[in-house]
Amino acid sequence: MKCISRLRQRWQHFLHDDELKQKIYSIVFESDTPKGKLFDIVLIGSITLSVLLVILESMHIFPHSAYLVLRVLEYLLTLFFTFEYLARIYCLKEPRKYIFSFFGIVDLLATLPVYLGFVFHDSHYLLVIRAFRLIRVFRIFKLFLFINEGNLLLRSLWISAPKIFIFFFFVLILVTSMGTVMYMIEGTQPGSDFNNIPNSIYWAIVTMTTVGYGDITPETPLGRFLSAVIMLIGYTIIAVPTGIVSATMVSEHKKQEKRKCPRCQRDGHDFEAMYCKYCGAKLRREKTDGQIHERRNDERF
Amino acid sequence: MKCISRLRQRWQHFLHDDELKQKIYSIVFESDTPKGKLFDIVLIGSITLSVLLVILESMHIFPHSAYLVLRVLEYLLTLFFTFEYLARIYCLKEPRKYIFSFFGIVDLLATLPVYLGFVFHDSHYLLVIRAFRLIRVFRIFKLFLFINEGNLLLRSLWISAPKIFIFFFFVLILVTSMGTVMYMIEGTQPGSDFNNIPNSIYWAIVTMTTVGYGDITPETPLGRFLSAVIMLIGYTIIAVPTGIVSATMVSEHKKQEKRKCPRCQRDGHDFEAMYCKYCGAKLRREKTDGQIHERRNDERF
Amino acid sequence: MKCISRLRQRWQHFLHDDELKQKIYSIVFESDTPKGKLFDIVLIGSITLSVLLVILESMHIFPHSAYLVLRVLEYLLTLFFTFEYLARIYCLKEPRKYIFSFFGIVDLLATLPVYLGFVFHDSHYLLVIRAFRLIRVFRIFKLFLFINEGNLLLRSLWISAPKIFIFFFFVLILVTSMGTVMYMIEGTQPGSDFNNIPNSIYWAIVTMTTVGYGDITPETPLGRFLSAVIMLIGYTIIAVPTGIVSATMVSEHKKQEKRKCPRCQRDGHDFEAMYCKYCGAKLRREKTDGQIHERRNDERF
Amino acid sequence: MKCISRLRQRWQHFLHDDELKQKIYSIVFESDTPKGKLFDIVLIGSITLSVLLVILESMHIFPHSAYLVLRVLEYLLTLFFTFEYLARIYCLKEPRKYIFSFFGIVDLLATLPVYLGFVFHDSHYLLVIRAFRLIRVFRIFKLFLFINEGNLLLRSLWISAPKIFIFFFFVLILVTSMGTVMYMIEGTQPGSDFNNIPNSIYWAIVTMTTVGYGDITPETPLGRFLSAVIMLIGYTIIAVPTGIVSATMVSEHKKQEKRKCPRCQRDGHDFEAMYCKYCGAKLRREKTDGQIHERRNDERF
Repeated sequence: MKCISRLRQRWQHFLHDDELKQKIYSIVFESDTPKGKLFDIVLIGSITLSVLLVILESMHIFPHSAYLVLRVLEYLLTLFFTFEYLARIYCLKEPRKYIFSFFGIVDLLATLPVYLGFVFHDSHYLLVIRAFRLIRVFRIFKLFLFINEGNLLLRSLWISAPKIFIFFFFVLILVTSMGTVMYMIEGTQPGSDFNNIPNSIYWAIVTMTTVGYGDITPETPLGRFLSAVIMLIGYTIIAVPTGIVSATMVSEHKKQEKRKCPRCQRDGHDFEAMYCKYCGAKLRREKTDGQIHERRNDERF
Repeated sequence: MKCISRLRQRWQHFLHDDELKQKIYSIVFESDTPKGKLFDIVLIGSITLSVLLVILESMHIFPHSAYLVLRVLEYLLTLFFTFEYLARIYCLKEPRKYIFSFFGIVDLLATLPVYLGFVFHDSHYLLVIRAFRLIRVFRIFKLFLFINEGNLLLRSLWISAPKIFIFFFFVLILVTSMGTVMYMIEGTQPGSDFNNIPNSIYWAIVTMTTVGYGDITPETPLGRFLSAVIMLIGYTIIAVPTGIVSATMVSEHKKQEKRKCPRCQRDGHDFEAMYCKYCGAKLRREKTDGQIHERRNDERF
Repeated sequence: MKCISRLRQRWQHFLHDDELKQKIYSIVFESDTPKGKLFDIVLIGSITLSVLLVILESMHIFPHSAYLVLRVLEYLLTLFFTFEYLARIYCLKEPRKYIFSFFGIVDLLATLPVYLGFVFHDSHYLLVIRAFRLIRVFRIFKLFLFINEGNLLLRSLWISAPKIFIFFFFVLILVTSMGTVMYMIEGTQPGSDFNNIPNSIYWAIVTMTTVGYGDITPETPLGRFLSAVIMLIGYTIIAVPTGIVSATMVSEHKKQEKRKCPRCQRDGHDFEAMYCKYCGAKLRREKTDGQIHERRNDERF
Repeated sequence: MKCISRLRQRWQHFLHDDELKQKIYSIVFESDTPKGKLFDIVLIGSITLSVLLVILESMHIFPHSAYLVLRVLEYLLTLFFTFEYLARIYCLKEPRKYIFSFFGIVDLLATLPVYLGFVFHDSHYLLVIRAFRLIRVFRIFKLFLFINEGNLLLRSLWISAPKIFIFFFFVLILVTSMGTVMYMIEGTQPGSDFNNIPNSIYWAIVTMTTVGYGDITPETPLGRFLSAVIMLIGYTIIAVPTGIVSATMVSEHKKQEKRKCPRCQRDGHDFEAMYCKYCGAKLRREKTDGQIHERRNDERF
């Protein structure tokens, strides 16, 4: 009885030990200290290893005995990732924000498949979702110039998103109509692969994106003529997302170049920069256009 | 006799009942009122459902009895769309303008196939043209920022159209010549798929657009060499429509950004905007370049 | 004797009949007069017809007797084109310039195959080169805005040419090396399609241009890995010609937009324009950058 | 004994004969003198010939006796290249810099395979690496305008490199995940080609780059649906590298155009130019943005 109450007390103490929390936080979330850096490198090594394990296992090239070793390694890595996940939740002041962030969900999904594997068979292949955890690799590169590049890419895609969304909506309508028309033309041929509308839509997507597997191909003259028309439409249409992203990047590129330090007049500052990197003067914020609403920049990765 | 004359009177009254017309107009064409919004949502739901019905029917996965249900649903939806089409014509002052507009034709084509289906078999697959009616979905999104994006896309494509038209004319000439030359080289092989010029032109289009099904492939060394040349030409030529659209978008993007309110100097206004969205001052119209003739902006959708 | 000398006299007279030359010139080369326009329309109709004849003949769908009709039509059209070619040479002051221009050579090649067909079999398929004569169709459109668009396209491609030439040189080197390495890896497999280096280079081009027929595919794990690398290189490299053409077009677009009339300050003038189309004031010529040497603008088409 | 010491003396003299070094240098490295130009043309001819020999040998179309001729030619060319390589090292003051430069390594690799061929079989196919030596062809073109174009291309790619690197990292993660999921969906089908994860990843790369061989294709409805999603993602994603390179080129293009001579105000100068090519005034250096670190411009080729 006493023992239990003491355990509870320790648990309470553990839950509110701010010093320990601070220490774990600096290891798990930061990468500026030597320990934090080491942890990050070990973590990325483990993730790469666990992804490789999943790939190796699927190749069926090892003798049966080796699979035991693979499984044990997998369990050990999962244990490590579970512990890491709990540590992350523990040391944050607002764990909920982390749990429902992109990385929080990926971190959870990275451990679940093994536990699910006890119940459902084959689900451990889902472990490959761990690959997404590799995005954390950029944290280590943060010191270098990569993060700035990545942000420009993400910002451009983010700004282009509504345009690309509309574009895909049109493509979807086009592909559905074209697929149905091809089903009507080609589907009557005996033994044709255009045997239902979903297959025809699949064919239309394969054609419009210029992938062109050749598993489903038109045989009739009219079908071939219509295919040629669809290809030429796809050829023009491929220009649209490229044009959208190019135009956005040109515009973003220019904004970044134009932003000058008010004191020393030098440009080339990072988008997030608040102070001039040459003389330390405060930079003015760029006016963002209407489309960009608040972006959660504080999301950790 | 009296009964008929009263009916005719009511019909006359109905045809000129401006109040009713106004009421129907606000439901069918507008989407700002609660009723109009509800109507739009029901309409888009019906369209999606009717497209799904056509796709499901083609899959031949249901028992025979289920097809009766599918057909009844299709007839009900067609009845609703026919009624809607008549309502649209009824409530407009100039119905001819609507009937011959893009959406008027699509709306008519969306109901016809079922009626044609009584006469011709299989024509009810044409119902998939209803998918184009989904473009109306943007009316509901009008309140959001999508419509502005869509307009920029359409404007860019519209301005690029003459350049792309010329480009395709050259491609057509090239593809015809290349197809014929390949027919001369490969067509002499026994069992070759280059067995006539239209098939060779089809192959040339499949190759130049980089789709590359592989249903028709060159076998002779000379044919392969020429194919490689055609591919490299296609590789360069794919850059042209992309370049056209990119250049237009960069230019349109800049124009939109440059357009400042003469009173408050803020930019980022929609292309159609006539008043500053921040202070309400009248905006100056952009000088459009020579290529853009009058565009019918009043077309409803 | 007398008869011959009179014929020679008439011939001499005919060769120097400037009035007749002027008349023919206005019909054959100009398209502003009603007769010139009619001639152009007849010419383009004949060209289209003759291309269609070649295509139809290859399809082997007509009864044997119909081929006689096709042949007679072909001979008649060839006679017309020969006469037209001679008329063009006759009415020019410097016929040599026309004979060795792009259109002069195409016009000659458009008639030769039929005459060659008396000697060599099957050469009449070369008649399809007549398709290139269709470029003349733009002469009729000259009155509209198309010609200006075509010039911007051609100028952009012309300026981009040296960059694209260098780019292709690198691609050729890459494709040769990759093809040979794949021959070393895959060629040892029995029954492999990588059976010699030219075939491997053909495969490398098919892969890098993202055509991907699938007639030659890697089978070994190492071969597949290397293929994936080549694809990803091709994926990046496809961006280069697009980037070149886009950058050039953006730059050309801007130049054209910037060119303002010095009197009325309006812009949007054609590149070749020498006078303002709004007020008739003389426009300043754009300074062209170093790369564009003299372009032969006087070439007729 | 005396003979040896005299040989050593001559060797010492040879090693320090600055006049001879200068003479050889002007022939081997420079291409402005007639001798240097001749040497370059002979060299490029030899390289082209040796690459053609390797390709011809793989085609197995010659009688057995012809291979002896091919081999002798190959040995002669290798001897010439070995001699040239030694001459290059001999005449430089800092040979180490050349040996470890890109061209130094290529020059070495161009001779090694033949010598390795005495030990290992088939390694002489590696001779195709000589193709890379053809890049030297630009030295002869140096007098023309090509070199400037090539530099703009390389600079644009160099600046885009970090962005493209990040982009490929994301693509790799995406392709690994997608490949594994497809293995889980399609791999259970008997006789499926998705028989292990590396093959599935290969398929995902073939699909995302829009190559689409068709050697591995999805068969199940769910697999086809997911493939369609992957294709549409690939379709959008293909826009990103194009956007990056386009934006960089537009920006570089503009920088080059903006750089004006401070005395005569003319623009269009080469990037490397230090003096105005029209009036000889010293040009100001462009401020390069942070990403471009020192580039070794002195690397010879």
